[in-house]
Amino acid sequence: MDDAATLQRFETGAALRAACRAGIWDRPTSGLAQGFQQGNIVILPRALADDFLRYCTRNPKPAPILGVSEPGDPSLPTLGADIDIRTDVPRYRVFRDGEPAEILTDLNALWRDDFVTFVLGCSFSFETALLRAAIPVRHIEAGRNVPMYKTNIETQSAGPFGGPMVVSMRPFTPADAIRAIVLSSYLPQAHGAPVHLGDPSAIGIADIATPDFGEAPDIHEGDVPVFWACGVTPQSAIRHARPPIAITHEPGHMLVTDLRADIG
Amino acid sequence: MDDAATLQRFETGAALRAACRAGIWDRPTSGLAQGFQQGNIVILPRALADDFLRYCTRNPKPAPILGVSEPGDPSLPTLGADIDIRTDVPRYRVFRDGEPAEILTDLNALWRDDFVTFVLGCSFSFETALLRAAIPVRHIEAGRNVPMYKTNIETQSAGPFGGPMVVSMRPFTPADAIRAIVLSSYLPQAHGAPVHLGDPSAIGIADIATPDFGEAPDIHEGDVPVFWACGVTPQSAIRHARPPIAITHEPGHMLVTDLRADIG
Repeated sequence: MDDAATLQRFETGAALRAACRAGIWDRPTSGLAQGFQQGNIVILPRALADDFLRYCTRNPKPAPILGVSEPGDPSLPTLGADIDIRTDVPRYRVFRDGEPAEILTDLNALWRDDFVTFVLGCSFSFETALLRAAIPVRHIEAGRNVPMYKTNIETQSAGPFGGPMVVSMRPFTPADAIRAIVLSSYLPQAHGAPVHLGDPSAIGIADIATPDFGEAPDIHEGDVPVFWACGVTPQSAIRHARPPIAITHEPGHMLVTDLRADIG
Repeated sequence: MDDAATLQRFETGAALRAACRAGIWDRPTSGLAQGFQQGNIVILPRALADDFLRYCTRNPKPAPILGVSEPGDPSLPTLGADIDIRTDVPRYRVFRDGEPAEILTDLNALWRDDFVTFVLGCSFSFETALLRAAIPVRHIEAGRNVPMYKTNIETQSAGPFGGPMVVSMRPFTPADAIRAIVLSSYLPQAHGAPVHLGDPSAIGIADIATPDFGEAPDIHEGDVPVFWACGVTPQSAIRHARPPIAITHEPGHMLVTDLRADIG
């Protein structure tokens, strides 16, 4: 299936989820079902879910809550009428004792009656808004993944969840940086306004050329680096908490919801 | 009259204008009649007013239009029920052939039946919003006037009006810079979002320590300089146009309106 055909086939979140459920799509979701909000997934046993929910509410920039399931219920009716979280994400990452252990394409064998699913906002809808506003996004133009960095900004902890904030970095001309800052402030569910700009060392980043996650940045002469709270932060909090089991999406392989990815 | 008494006496735009009209107030208006929008004043003969109106509409960041009078009419009913622009500003600056010629406290002797008054937004309501949001404003803390600079950013010309944009600069911590940028984007009538941040030389400012207007900046370690379009720009456009006569307020001595200085 070529790219144009893929884009046409997966015009909606429902179409993409159906393909995941049928086992015919297990690839990244970036650029698919444009206009629909995509989400980071965290699945935890009920015994840890209350702590994690407080962690998210205390850290709304890295972990904006789009939805939370009832314990044991694989549906998320506020995000999409037919969602089955056991099958509707392209790829899952299973953490055991805080470390990645397996990659799966469904959770049928692992599902438990005490699992609670969290869906957290991601930056795709923000990047779509930047491109619609004709603000160049360097890593997209370079065909790379966004660079991400561990910082010295501590998240607000809750129970065993805590640890440093992870940020994504996008460089812009100063004028575009201002527009990007204002635009992102309208999208709190896609991490909202940035947390830092300028000097990377002020937030504990020793070498901007060497990100901790993603790919090396493409910074043009005169660009200002702008740093947003990143959805990788909750995975960092899981490593910090070391729960016996936790399940996330595999990075880039998101749940695509029926929510519109517009202002709000 | 001590400062507390001054503040209490001039709680509204109407009270301050009445004091100017009675000849008992000819000092700056910064910090007075808090919550009411203050405005830059430009008065031009009708023959030049159309060009200047187009100049303002083409340059809304340095010259946001709050109101325009009918030719020869000293009232501005959309900005305040009783405004008489000939008497209600603390001090006026008269330009002849584009150069400052006189400072007056009323325009009774100079008024002409073809004069058109423009009232343009100023940054005071923005600075009030910063202080309310607990964002430190360095020049206010240092008891100084804001530093202002000529730039290499050309305004969009209209008739004889044109020339470079003048900017004001406020330094902030990076996190406060982000908040100030978002906040100012909600205040288009107070120059809106900034036009630049970071490297001053990128907009033609050779030495940030030596502003062209106002006082030297107070920049703390780690601060990011942020640059907003400035209401001095229209005075620069008058120098550029060299009209036989033009009248402005004396800097800092603004018209205080009845408009609320809130969001919008």
